[in-house]
Amino acid sequence: MFRIGNGIDFHKLIHEPFRPLMLAGVEVKSEYAFLGHSDADVILHAVSDAILGALSLGDIGQHFPDTDPSIKNMDSSVITKKCISLITERGWKLVNVDCTYVGDLPKINPIRSELIQSLANILSLPLDCVSIKATTSEGMGALGRSEGVMVMATVLLEKSSKK
Amino acid sequence: MFRIGNGIDFHKLIHEPFRPLMLAGVEVKSEYAFLGHSDADVILHAVSDAILGALSLGDIGQHFPDTDPSIKNMDSSVITKKCISLITERGWKLVNVDCTYVGDLPKINPIRSELIQSLANILSLPLDCVSIKATTSEGMGALGRSEGVMVMATVLLEKSSKK
Amino acid sequence: MFRIGNGIDFHKLIHEPFRPLMLAGVEVKSEYAFLGHSDADVILHAVSDAILGALSLGDIGQHFPDTDPSIKNMDSSVITKKCISLITERGWKLVNVDCTYVGDLPKINPIRSELIQSLANILSLPLDCVSIKATTSEGMGALGRSEGVMVMATVLLEKSSKK
Ligand SMILES: [Zn+2]
Ligand SMILES: [Zn+2]
Ligand SMILES: [Zn+2]
Repeated sequence: MFRIGNGIDFHKLIHEPFRPLMLAGVEVKSEYAFLGHSDADVILHAVSDAILGALSLGDIGQHFPDTDPSIKNMDSSVITKKCISLITERGWKLVNVDCTYVGDLPKINPIRSELIQSLANILSLPLDCVSIKATTSEGMGALGRSEGVMVMATVLLEKSSKK
Repeated sequence: MFRIGNGIDFHKLIHEPFRPLMLAGVEVKSEYAFLGHSDADVILHAVSDAILGALSLGDIGQHFPDTDPSIKNMDSSVITKKCISLITERGWKLVNVDCTYVGDLPKINPIRSELIQSLANILSLPLDCVSIKATTSEGMGALGRSEGVMVMATVLLEKSSKK
Repeated sequence: MFRIGNGIDFHKLIHEPFRPLMLAGVEVKSEYAFLGHSDADVILHAVSDAILGALSLGDIGQHFPDTDPSIKNMDSSVITKKCISLITERGWKLVNVDCTYVGDLPKINPIRSELIQSLANILSLPLDCVSIKATTSEGMGALGRSEGVMVMATVLLEKSSKK
């Protein structure tokens, strides 16, 4: 048996040299940071939402409401690992994860392998089942003015059908 | 055998207390409404397009052109149920549906279970195969100015391979 | 075994009667053209990225950097066919491709069957496994001002599991 899920997440980018910029669990060297209640890790949020969607278990806003003070500055890998535990508790297995990052900054290409390594680690998946792609909106709209970024993630889940 | 499909739909939000705001077949209490030729049910439109995409059968604009006066103010569940009948006619089965709603208004969290119940009903799917998630563009762009909303849906179809 | 992938691509639209407007490998008659380093075929780029994502092989920006002069004005079907060869080299098979085009111009409906025929041809897939859907952002944002278009593609890959 299979299930698919999708996740979309947006975060604003601010010039803030003293706040870490987190992406896929990696602290990226940058003069910029993403704005958000938790650590604003836009890749982990999109992937987590895609997992919750595939499981029909709500969304990260419901599981981790940004009105909850305990979530302030929270490491988003905790959120993603909680989603992974929901997969395994229900007898499902994560097959592969694909992310598209839309934004001008930070550039993904120079840090891609580090991000994929970290994401695969958080998801307990082999590297060849984890993908992070990047593109831009070619200067159009808010993302084209570097106001922030968007990530879309899709996931495939599998369950052995013998039961 | 499996097929996947995706759907994207946008609708403008207007302040219009006397027009019903339809979401996933539910009339949501709101001072706002979505603008559109049919009942502008952005969730049902995205899901219907994802089904047509998985079947390689065109899109809802082709099947239900907004120049057709009979579609004016039409209940979009008619559109979605037509798509479901196209699935079954061709020997396919809908496995699961996942939606991401991007917008500020109306808020999905307080009405999520009602929307999922209605969508599952329209799709004739069990609740644990239907998901509606919500997020915002964090104030960025047209969606961040509450001009309207976007929904992205993904669907998985299955066909028994013994033939 | 299955894998899913997604791709997103944006290109600006310019009024340029003497530059060809390429979509899914078809030269579309139009007073407009898409701006880009290669032939700016937004459908082929989104599909190619979705394939690379499903294979966890990076993205088209990495494989075909737009700083590479040999890619200038390149026929994007070369890019997509390269991605197809990566699928087959690794023992995978493309199952189906679904695209959503978001934009005002050019209109897809009158040219849809020609685009699908061309895309199916480039992908070596039967017509009923290839889908191109179209919608608009209903006048919102940069896409609603006809500054350009966006395409989202999803793909499903399969590998025989006997090995
Ligand atoms: Zn987030
Ligand atoms: Zn619609
Ligand atoms: Zn492109």
